[in-house]
Amino acid sequence: MSKGVALEAGTTSKGASASRGLSILDLIFRIVAGVSTLASAIAMATTNETLPFFTQFIRFRAEYDDLPTFMFFVVANSIITGYLVLSLTFSIFHIIKTNAKGSRILLVILDTAALGVLTSAASAAAAIVYLAHKGNTSANWFAICQQFNSFCERISGSLIGSFIAVVMFILLILLSGFAISRRH
Amino acid sequence: MSKGVALEAGTTSKGASASRGLSILDLIFRIVAGVSTLASAIAMATTNETLPFFTQFIRFRAEYDDLPTFMFFVVANSIITGYLVLSLTFSIFHIIKTNAKGSRILLVILDTAALGVLTSAASAAAAIVYLAHKGNTSANWFAICQQFNSFCERISGSLIGSFIAVVMFILLILLSGFAISRRH
Repeated sequence: MSKGVALEAGTTSKGASASRGLSILDLIFRIVAGVSTLASAIAMATTNETLPFFTQFIRFRAEYDDLPTFMFFVVANSIITGYLVLSLTFSIFHIIKTNAKGSRILLVILDTAALGVLTSAASAAAAIVYLAHKGNTSANWFAICQQFNSFCERISGSLIGSFIAVVMFILLILLSGFAISRRH
Repeated sequence: MSKGVALEAGTTSKGASASRGLSILDLIFRIVAGVSTLASAIAMATTNETLPFFTQFIRFRAEYDDLPTFMFFVVANSIITGYLVLSLTFSIFHIIKTNAKGSRILLVILDTAALGVLTSAASAAAAIVYLAHKGNTSANWFAICQQFNSFCERISGSLIGSFIAVVMFILLILLSGFAISRRH
């Protein structure tokens, strides 16, 4: 009987250290995702290009807020960065207190919501960036990247950070699911 | 001691019936999601409009495969419909065998991936539909909906099914997470 108890205590302690490992991984993924979304938001928000020629009426200038999709992209990335910074406190709390369950479930729900917001922002922006690069002959939409070269490079690059963060969120959700399934 | 065993057996049986309830809810959500994505795919794929006037060289005709984003939308919705139909077998299996754990974890991983694919397809299509409705003066993209009225109505409507399915997937993931956290 005492052997059984000792065995159980051993299992619990092993489980706790494995959970701590998962929590540390969780923290790292959150930091990577936060840096990625912050970089995306800054890269998109600070880009602008003014063409060296202009007519009497129009100055050719491209900025992110010309397209509502890019504004959504910047706002979504900023919000997710804020959320990730706040969620770091939870993540650190989970490293210290490995048997917390309620806060883990709360976090996985918020992570799923954040994944949805971020994926939609990144995909919508990607659809517009594709259009800017290739244009569409059927709809008579021109490829504006032929004029706005450096603007297009920046907006294409800024997508990368968001998609890295999307992958991180998928890993975070799977990790949390795994961590929750270990506890009872 | 025998009271303790009886109590435990009672808890397990109660837990099993609660799990069965969750599995039935899971099945219903999957059917709703499957019908939604199928409807979306069909609505988008079958839409086309030919304008009643044409020049010598161009016939004005709009179809979903003029825009790569809409093709992605149709393909993604079709794939997700197929996945949902296949996953019904798992869902039914979970109703019968309430303490299955491995297959639940497999399903939540696949659901998360499906959520990612579907959200990106729906958002990218929404970004293009928005552009078709409003156009963009900065980029000199015209609002093609001014010509292609019924085409635009169909593509806008087909988005609804996808977004319903996205919500269903979020609920499915939360439900699975809850069901997994109950077992050990």
